[in-house]
Amino acid sequence: MARYDFASDNTAPAAPEAMEAIVAANSGFASGYGTDHVSARAADAVRALLDADAEVRFVASGTAANAVALAALCRPFEAVIAHEHAHVCTDETGAPGFFGHGLGLIGLPGASGRIDPAALAAPLAQPDVSHRQSPAALSLTNATEYGTVYSQDQLAALIRAAKAKGLGVHLDGARLANAAAAGFDLKSIARLGVDILVIGGAKAGMPPTETVVIFDRALVRRFDARLKQSGQLPSKGRFYAAPFIGMLESGAFTARAAHANAMARRLAAAMPFPLAHPVEANAVFVRMDDEALARLHAAGWFAYRFLDGSVRFMCSWAVTPETVDELAQTLDAIA
Amino acid sequence: MARYDFASDNTAPAAPEAMEAIVAANSGFASGYGTDHVSARAADAVRALLDADAEVRFVASGTAANAVALAALCRPFEAVIAHEHAHVCTDETGAPGFFGHGLGLIGLPGASGRIDPAALAAPLAQPDVSHRQSPAALSLTNATEYGTVYSQDQLAALIRAAKAKGLGVHLDGARLANAAAAGFDLKSIARLGVDILVIGGAKAGMPPTETVVIFDRALVRRFDARLKQSGQLPSKGRFYAAPFIGMLESGAFTARAAHANAMARRLAAAMPFPLAHPVEANAVFVRMDDEALARLHAAGWFAYRFLDGSVRFMCSWAVTPETVDELAQTLDAIA
Amino acid sequence: MARYDFASDNTAPAAPEAMEAIVAANSGFASGYGTDHVSARAADAVRALLDADAEVRFVASGTAANAVALAALCRPFEAVIAHEHAHVCTDETGAPGFFGHGLGLIGLPGASGRIDPAALAAPLAQPDVSHRQSPAALSLTNATEYGTVYSQDQLAALIRAAKAKGLGVHLDGARLANAAAAGFDLKSIARLGVDILVIGGAKAGMPPTETVVIFDRALVRRFDARLKQSGQLPSKGRFYAAPFIGMLESGAFTARAAHANAMARRLAAAMPFPLAHPVEANAVFVRMDDEALARLHAAGWFAYRFLDGSVRFMCSWAVTPETVDELAQTLDAIA
Amino acid sequence: MARYDFASDNTAPAAPEAMEAIVAANSGFASGYGTDHVSARAADAVRALLDADAEVRFVASGTAANAVALAALCRPFEAVIAHEHAHVCTDETGAPGFFGHGLGLIGLPGASGRIDPAALAAPLAQPDVSHRQSPAALSLTNATEYGTVYSQDQLAALIRAAKAKGLGVHLDGARLANAAAAGFDLKSIARLGVDILVIGGAKAGMPPTETVVIFDRALVRRFDARLKQSGQLPSKGRFYAAPFIGMLESGAFTARAAHANAMARRLAAAMPFPLAHPVEANAVFVRMDDEALARLHAAGWFAYRFLDGSVRFMCSWAVTPETVDELAQTLDAIA
Repeated sequence: MARYDFASDNTAPAAPEAMEAIVAANSGFASGYGTDHVSARAADAVRALLDADAEVRFVASGTAANAVALAALCRPFEAVIAHEHAHVCTDETGAPGFFGHGLGLIGLPGASGRIDPAALAAPLAQPDVSHRQSPAALSLTNATEYGTVYSQDQLAALIRAAKAKGLGVHLDGARLANAAAAGFDLKSIARLGVDILVIGGAKAGMPPTETVVIFDRALVRRFDARLKQSGQLPSKGRFYAAPFIGMLESGAFTARAAHANAMARRLAAAMPFPLAHPVEANAVFVRMDDEALARLHAAGWFAYRFLDGSVRFMCSWAVTPETVDELAQTLDAIA
Repeated sequence: MARYDFASDNTAPAAPEAMEAIVAANSGFASGYGTDHVSARAADAVRALLDADAEVRFVASGTAANAVALAALCRPFEAVIAHEHAHVCTDETGAPGFFGHGLGLIGLPGASGRIDPAALAAPLAQPDVSHRQSPAALSLTNATEYGTVYSQDQLAALIRAAKAKGLGVHLDGARLANAAAAGFDLKSIARLGVDILVIGGAKAGMPPTETVVIFDRALVRRFDARLKQSGQLPSKGRFYAAPFIGMLESGAFTARAAHANAMARRLAAAMPFPLAHPVEANAVFVRMDDEALARLHAAGWFAYRFLDGSVRFMCSWAVTPETVDELAQTLDAIA
Repeated sequence: MARYDFASDNTAPAAPEAMEAIVAANSGFASGYGTDHVSARAADAVRALLDADAEVRFVASGTAANAVALAALCRPFEAVIAHEHAHVCTDETGAPGFFGHGLGLIGLPGASGRIDPAALAAPLAQPDVSHRQSPAALSLTNATEYGTVYSQDQLAALIRAAKAKGLGVHLDGARLANAAAAGFDLKSIARLGVDILVIGGAKAGMPPTETVVIFDRALVRRFDARLKQSGQLPSKGRFYAAPFIGMLESGAFTARAAHANAMARRLAAAMPFPLAHPVEANAVFVRMDDEALARLHAAGWFAYRFLDGSVRFMCSWAVTPETVDELAQTLDAIA
Repeated sequence: MARYDFASDNTAPAAPEAMEAIVAANSGFASGYGTDHVSARAADAVRALLDADAEVRFVASGTAANAVALAALCRPFEAVIAHEHAHVCTDETGAPGFFGHGLGLIGLPGASGRIDPAALAAPLAQPDVSHRQSPAALSLTNATEYGTVYSQDQLAALIRAAKAKGLGVHLDGARLANAAAAGFDLKSIARLGVDILVIGGAKAGMPPTETVVIFDRALVRRFDARLKQSGQLPSKGRFYAAPFIGMLESGAFTARAAHANAMARRLAAAMPFPLAHPVEANAVFVRMDDEALARLHAAGWFAYRFLDGSVRFMCSWAVTPETVDELAQTLDAIA
């Protein structure tokens, strides 16, 4: 049976802090649809994390959270600018277009998952014409799909350019914990001008749950109706909120991500194959030919070839140094 | 602080069998997107429950599950026939139209939540014309919104009429456990000709989870892509599957619902207000004027006026006889 | 072969003024997508008609024009309030939900096609809740589906109530010419607070063309992209604009409608069947049983039973007094 | 004032044969929504043109016709394969995604507007996975956006590959007349396996009108409801059908296109700038720098830079040899 330890950061179980918080929250009766005391406490924890007075919702799916956010920023005859390999462009089966009724995606290049600022200039400079979906939003991802982390300055430059043209800004934080553990200051997000943020729970070591944070107050009206219609207003909201209480109040959110990042560095250090991207968060991408990959699979380890042709190893909170070393030995053997 | 014990069956915590199964499933690494061993085992349990060789998926939201199912049965220029007070018509913020790109809903009358067979005849008899959304699917709910339970014969008659006109059939089983506990034979569903079924987890005493069961094989192709695009293909599928293992393999699914139904009968027996609908599952609807309702709220119990003007008391698995008696005493006092 | 003279006001040919304008416009090369000189001149004529400085577009379809307008006013998780028998509710195959990604329709009662102001109060008074599509727009129709005409005061009262709750206002003017001919002051529309208006060309005696008038400047940005994506930004815009030049600059728009209205009055005066609605514009609705209707069909005249059970006779610009008298004789014979 | 003679083939007026047919059809009353005698006769003419027993509809917009066709072939979680510069990908403001509720577009490369068969192999070979929109349809364009014409063999090879994977096939015939005039056998379309075809009227010298031809009978059910909901079932269908009678029964459809093609060859022969693509239909694409283009604009001729960076000159039926020569002289002067 194949081992999925490094296949993704969603193959891991949930961390104890998250599970204990769910068990603790599972007591007594609570009002529905996010109006419960557990959701209120978790929202406070998120606001504290971000040092921002924002609206906070807990939903089931990162794909849906991103898509709902983009639909809130962008009308069907407009487009979202994102990195060409961003999750919203490549891994969500067109969810932004589905939730956003055909909204367009403009994929931009950029090394190792970060949008190239020069590439951003082009769509922003294009005149509004009726036969094309003009951009209405910029979607950023931190940490990126390639395990790199935008600096505040890099984000600020991209956001400034987008805001100058009136675009809204979405931040996909599926791996925000890993970015934070790598030094990205979460308290800068509101000040950078992000309008809507999705904080990943699943990849941060929680059971399925994601947080939607709305900084732009103009987006708040009837947002719960938007969520309900999208199948993302859970009746038993405490189950999505509780893991964030467990992870945030304990500090495990960042601490567990720091461990994951450390495991990626450990793997990178022992890696016999050439690295394809800088290892700044919890992913290791390497150049490996098909034969080597086949040998790896034959040895029982599941990893797959990513969009850029490199092979991805993902370290979750649950990966141990021993497992990293075990994998590294196998890699040595097949290299 | 208001008490929500009877406000809905989703105000209750999750039952121990469901929670223990989640904790048990939270071990080791597992492949993603429903391909894991927990999901496989839970799917087997669902197939055993229904005595049917069907495709089974576990998703986060009942609203989304219903909407995705209807979108699979009905094109945008077609309509779904349902009871006018069915959840899909009244409580999902237009989710069927959102997931189904504007598909229409034809609401039919019928006593106590069951569609009147005579009322069904009318839309089925109408000629296909281009300026109207002609029906393509029939959506049924068992147990109904008003706490009644269709018999097999009643369902068979409605389904036969719909199938004779080529319609697909969806069964919303948000309270299927309560229907089963009231005597509805779950093994009859496949034989009745249901094409797609949603089995409620949340209202049956589980954390957020719902099962989608696809009987019509023609609907299966690319259904996972459909779910993924809809934000309903969970990366960590085991968390949605495990509660069904816990509830189904132990028999708690039906047993907990039988308790809920018994609590509703106990409340009905002690009810000083006139019943608005037969008490066949876990709901008690009564005629109560605004002043009495205000006194009830003042006494700390939350209940609300339903679509037909009656006041609803919902009994979950977690309601105790003592609480029922406590509520009954309050009702006596305010009657 | 059946005669369609009274079947609808779209069974008539186009009026000479419209056709001549098309032929006149069909000369030389013109820039595309509504940027041509013909469209500019026609837009001026529309602004003069309405005495308003509004944005004007010419499109192919009234169904699409209404649906695009409603989609501009209402998000998918919101609803449009309209008369329950309004064209947008009953005759457009769910186009508002299709163009508006599942937006809801709230149908209100009201005698002879006019919304009952008391009925409007109910949805406006309901609290915003997340499980229901709350109203974001009011859609009015003048002349109404039943051939009646709202007075300015009646419209003002409905619009005032809607605006007080922040709703946008759409006016379906498929038969605006007939309303104008009946005394409705078109110059009042802007002052009444209508945000977006559709002026019917087809039913006013033109080839297929409709005008969209945008009074609310906040709706203008990227409206052409909205139209283009909706298939309603014609490359050869002059063909949709020219008929309005022909009809408006000559006064035929109102004059032809006045004739149609007069024909309806003539038919009503000779009508042996009881009238179902006041005859204020170009329609005559009568109570007629199935046998009489069958005899009418057998006599070669096509008319059909409308939503309220009455039989509709529609008078277009092209109906002649002689034909009215001929129909009246047949009706006498079968009564 | 700028001259638009070569800006597009939709800047031209309508040809006499089309206009005369509209005037001729504008007589007497006719039943609505495409059920009239004019539409029936035009449909016969289209079937004769194609030598196929297909369903034929006449609609207002090519953008909508293509989008409706693709929505009929492809579900939201699936994708359409097309040339990366096909009109559906680049010039319709995302209409396929809007009408198709987020359906995906997979743009393929290929010289001068023809899809490279080798490029087609890649998306067809990819496994169905849930996180990506897998292809369900192939969209072809003949003549292509770059004024080239697929041979029957080239189309057959692409269609055969698509059909082998179960894809549906759409043919965008916005310039089908030009392809026919260049030798493409229209009677081959049905035999090639095209499922749905759009025949352009506007670019072929007609007022706004396009034909939708449905070869695959499985797509026919409720297609009129699909059109009606999409705003593409004209109430006065004869105005969209008549131009096709005029152009097809007279042979002007192909003859006028042959003239346009000849004008393109004449322009190409006199062209001082290097050709960017073979001139096989009615377009001439040239390599011209910004300064030369500015001089051309200053000289009063409007032409614009296309997606591949070349400058496009489009010849319609209405372009005369004298105008071509006049343009050629200007080009000589600025070269």
